Amino acid sequence: MPLVGASFETAAAPVVAVLGGTGQQGRGLARRLAMAGRTVLVGSRDAARAEQAAAELGAGGAAGIRGGTNADVARAADVVVVAVPWQGHAELLRELADDLAGKLVVDCVNPLERDERGPKPVAVPEGSAAEQAAALLPRSRVVAAFHHISAKVLLEGDEPDETDVLVVGDDREAKQVVMELADAIAGLRGVDAGPLRLARWVEGMTAVIIAVNRRYKTRAGLRVTGI
Amino acid sequence: MPLVGASFETAAAPVVAVLGGTGQQGRGLARRLAMAGRTVLVGSRDAARAEQAAAELGAGGAAGIRGGTNADVARAADVVVVAVPWQGHAELLRELADDLAGKLVVDCVNPLERDERGPKPVAVPEGSAAEQAAALLPRSRVVAAFHHISAKVLLEGDEPDETDVLVVGDDREAKQVVMELADAIAGLRGVDAGPLRLARWVEGMTAVIIAVNRRYKTRAGLRVTGI
Repeated sequence: MPLVGASFETAAAPVVAVLGGTGQQGRGLARRLAMAGRTVLVGSRDAARAEQAAAELGAGGAAGIRGGTNADVARAADVVVVAVPWQGHAELLRELADDLAGKLVVDCVNPLERDERGPKPVAVPEGSAAEQAAALLPRSRVVAAFHHISAKVLLEGDEPDETDVLVVGDDREAKQVVMELADAIAGLRGVDAGPLRLARWVEGMTAVIIAVNRRYKTRAGLRVTGI
Repeated sequence: MPLVGASFETAAAPVVAVLGGTGQQGRGLARRLAMAGRTVLVGSRDAARAEQAAAELGAGGAAGIRGGTNADVARAADVVVVAVPWQGHAELLRELADDLAGKLVVDCVNPLERDERGPKPVAVPEGSAAEQAAALLPRSRVVAAFHHISAKVLLEGDEPDETDVLVVGDDREAKQVVMELADAIAGLRGVDAGPLRLARWVEGMTAVIIAVNRRYKTRAGLRVTGI
């Protein structure tokens, strides 16, 4: 049975797969995208775990989510959100390069480590997780987005506080698609934040937000004023 | 004649010097701090240029600003804001290390270069301008702040849109002083954004804001939601 039926061919809205969709961030994004009416496929290394996560999100009210292996959901989708831990990022993308060819890949991975003082910088040879993705996926269009929204916020409640989604990439059209995805989620707004080479700083701001959360015991978000 | 008279000894509020105070960012910060009632000293390599900038800001309504060489104003102040171009950052701080001993140094320098696509990453061996300052000034307390506010916004009008000043540093007390300085400026709010090792990302966000400004033809600012 194909993961996506007739709706794939007929729907105007892109079908979205979430790799690492059983993790907190992945489940949160899948939930919000499904709540926004998108067809969402949750991927995992283990198809059974992905199907379970999809069923749980469906039982929680986020309808229209299916599960499958990362490779299967990647092939079935138009837009593929990469929400895996940084430690597995390069390996997964190298494995899936063929499955992701021609897809719009949305990298939301933060290359961070933690120690007793909180999140700390990780040196990425390519400059950022997103640039690493672009290097590993020359046949995909890579955009980076959705770094800053707390997974807990995505997984709970109806609508997060108004938060901006900074979208970076070198393909204007691809960025536009991702900004529209962000806009479709209640409480979020997509903001074009420049070319992919700025991704390191968008990703790094996640560490700053985590530090703010620690200091103020909150779930902080970012808003860009003046637009 | 000393740069700062009786007010230095008696005032509860720290005297603030701005190195590179004849540049746009420096003049803008000097203006806003003077408007907030602080005693402000504008520094430059050239004392005459600093005095001229101070006089112009005074004529524009920002009273209480004096000018002098970078070294003179550094010695006379409690808090020293570093607002020089990135290209001259290390050299200036190396020269002034003795003058800055014991001072609270607020680095607001963004290590950026520009090309036809806008701002681009600069590799800083120490990780960030602020960490470079800390390495060059072992006898000073170094905090980084005031990176994101447009110089034009600081130089024009009465009150900027509500904008947050992300303050990073390893000295809680020093951060508190800088957050209070930010809070004293109308429209600004100081936010404790974590340890100094996160400075690279706070500095880098300036490039993202410049990219947003280009894209949306605006003067964007940042707000942290949830605190």
